[in-house]
Amino acid sequence: MERKRSKDLALKERAMKVVPGGMYGHESTIMLPSGFPQFFLKGRGGRIWDVDENEYVDYMCAYGPNLLGYGFEPVEQAAALQRALGDTLTGPSERFVELAEAFVGMVDHADWAMFCKNGTDATTMTMVIARAKTQRRKILCAQGAYHGAAPWCTPRPAGILDEDRAHIVYYQHNDVESLEAAFKTHAGDVAGVIATPFRHEVFGDQSIPDAEYAQMARKLCDEHGALLIVDDVRAGFRLARDSSWSNVGVKPDLSAWGKCFANGYPISAVLGSDIARDAAAKIFVTGSFWFSAVPMAAAIETLKQIRETDYLERTIDIGEKLRNGIGQLAEDHGLGLKQTGPVQMPQILFEGDKDFRVGYAWAEECVKRGAYIHPYHNMFVSASHTDEDVARTLTAADGAFRSVKKDWKKLEPHPVLMAVLG
Amino acid sequence: MERKRSKDLALKERAMKVVPGGMYGHESTIMLPSGFPQFFLKGRGGRIWDVDENEYVDYMCAYGPNLLGYGFEPVEQAAALQRALGDTLTGPSERFVELAEAFVGMVDHADWAMFCKNGTDATTMTMVIARAKTQRRKILCAQGAYHGAAPWCTPRPAGILDEDRAHIVYYQHNDVESLEAAFKTHAGDVAGVIATPFRHEVFGDQSIPDAEYAQMARKLCDEHGALLIVDDVRAGFRLARDSSWSNVGVKPDLSAWGKCFANGYPISAVLGSDIARDAAAKIFVTGSFWFSAVPMAAAIETLKQIRETDYLERTIDIGEKLRNGIGQLAEDHGLGLKQTGPVQMPQILFEGDKDFRVGYAWAEECVKRGAYIHPYHNMFVSASHTDEDVARTLTAADGAFRSVKKDWKKLEPHPVLMAVLG
Repeated sequence: MERKRSKDLALKERAMKVVPGGMYGHESTIMLPSGFPQFFLKGRGGRIWDVDENEYVDYMCAYGPNLLGYGFEPVEQAAALQRALGDTLTGPSERFVELAEAFVGMVDHADWAMFCKNGTDATTMTMVIARAKTQRRKILCAQGAYHGAAPWCTPRPAGILDEDRAHIVYYQHNDVESLEAAFKTHAGDVAGVIATPFRHEVFGDQSIPDAEYAQMARKLCDEHGALLIVDDVRAGFRLARDSSWSNVGVKPDLSAWGKCFANGYPISAVLGSDIARDAAAKIFVTGSFWFSAVPMAAAIETLKQIRETDYLERTIDIGEKLRNGIGQLAEDHGLGLKQTGPVQMPQILFEGDKDFRVGYAWAEECVKRGAYIHPYHNMFVSASHTDEDVARTLTAADGAFRSVKKDWKKLEPHPVLMAVLG
Repeated sequence: MERKRSKDLALKERAMKVVPGGMYGHESTIMLPSGFPQFFLKGRGGRIWDVDENEYVDYMCAYGPNLLGYGFEPVEQAAALQRALGDTLTGPSERFVELAEAFVGMVDHADWAMFCKNGTDATTMTMVIARAKTQRRKILCAQGAYHGAAPWCTPRPAGILDEDRAHIVYYQHNDVESLEAAFKTHAGDVAGVIATPFRHEVFGDQSIPDAEYAQMARKLCDEHGALLIVDDVRAGFRLARDSSWSNVGVKPDLSAWGKCFANGYPISAVLGSDIARDAAAKIFVTGSFWFSAVPMAAAIETLKQIRETDYLERTIDIGEKLRNGIGQLAEDHGLGLKQTGPVQMPQILFEGDKDFRVGYAWAEECVKRGAYIHPYHNMFVSASHTDEDVARTLTAADGAFRSVKKDWKKLEPHPVLMAVLG
């Protein structure tokens, strides 16, 4: 049975006229197989419907923001109560203070909080704070790690100048020697290390760092008077009810948060320890909607759910069932999978699939069968995903494996992907 | 009669513990007189209530976003309809295309649109697009103009490196010779001019540029193959139903929008002409909430109100009444005012008030009397302000003039302001 696609295709044509390239950013389908819909009608729990009303079990969760389920009632109610009073006003509301207090009470390293809109706002602020604190210039970043889309960090070079990254130094993630070497090369000028909580870059296997590496990052920062920053924008509250590096016994000085802590309402945050408080008070950062009260009300309720429910255990449970089920199916079909990353933020690639043609075909066949599986970006499980969602996904995955095997010799690499990867 | 202040003061104390310096950004009251409340309870129409339930006629309009009135029903309804379906999903909704089409249909120079969250996102994108288009580095900015709070443009230097602004060149606003000189000095390397639609910087008189200057900016960009950018984040749709420079007969290549076009919902935009389309498609920019559907639904309805109602004429009418009324009162009291800027975005400073002590005292006395008047930042009139609001404001202003005259010899400059201004 063919899915209806006409409305999505018509919208793509209209978008091509009034949006450069038809779409931009991380939700663009330009590098995805053509079977992926670009435009969506609605979401509920762990499911989404495209504009042609095709239903999917959604493992992207809006690329992170959906933690508790689309339309999750307690969060919607908290937002509605605040909305009846006001959202974007001439100053913050009481929610601002309540939210800062809630965060500081939950995240071990945090003595203070600042709120912003984009993940990129948060990571950029941590960098500026580290420089203001230390009066030094260099920020050490793991090669290939994604920290946002500002000139200093966007993964594509168009319009970017050498100066934008003059003092960004790249080291190898999870490699103590590489980090030590970076500190040595730039001795006396390292303002901070911005660490990814785990390797979650596109088109690659994901990996949790060794505790030894994380602890050495802490030690090197202490020895050199640099600040340790963890970029928890993508992983925050999906690995722990605290900073993700609480799992490896390390407290950063600064952390960047975003995506999911208001369950889809737009807000991001920087948390810091007292060592960085004065420097944070010195920088000037702001945005037209940074003090809006509704996302803060939503965040306060989301943090309460994080503290008081088993949302995390449920996402891990679903993630394990999904990984085990897909792994078994792949084995049954005699196909080699690489399922990496935490089960609740899974990445699924195919062994030996150098140009990603097999993974692309399999993901597209999953999508056609009602499971929105991504072929190159880590996925997300929400606390609203159910055993029924997993069952539906496994049925889709089974059919997709069968289809890929049948069409094996006809599979071709994605033309845009090939152009981008060179 | 003393206003109740206890809740605001208690919240400020709590904030001091969990937020660096107690507050940050443009809505911080740290540089305002102590009578200004920091935290707000609610907003409705053209009024706001602080957390102690004191009511104010609000001439900040959330520093811009409130164009049609807080809680304006048609926009709230459009947002609610979309919210029932979904907001932040795994891709944009149909609203994305509709909004881009609406913008392109309204703003003369625009052939395409991109949406983001912060005004700073939009201005930064215009800079990156201009560089991607021209393969050049220099961006010419008017000295003192505010274009956001990223490292390349934030008005405070803490944590900022020389490299962040290595290719930002400053010229004098509304000064053709200065602009020509900047082009000459950097011949062959000018990517774009980012122009403020009118001078609206803090602590200064506002001024609309001469048409000759604006047209010469266009001509110089054309001659040198640079892009002309108008930063309409603050002024957009308050001066015209088109780009603000349509008033001086100039079409930019790119424009940045934010603040008010979704009546308080969080969204900003870059609009561009075809000359910049390919370059815009090449850059990588994105944000976790840039594709959320609710702010787009709110924006579509706000743009409809802008097209189809007399909102603009009403804000001008109220602005004129306010300016005339306050001017008459000042004259009656024998005080010299400088009321500058468009009437709907007024700036009120006092003649000869070098350290701003008179203006600060007057604004504080207005606030105490229920009119939220800003002593150093341009204000905003919304389409929901009424003659009754003006009458209440003039009563407050009258009492404030009287109070300032009485206390004239006791007035002192604001200590934080003095520290900042040096």
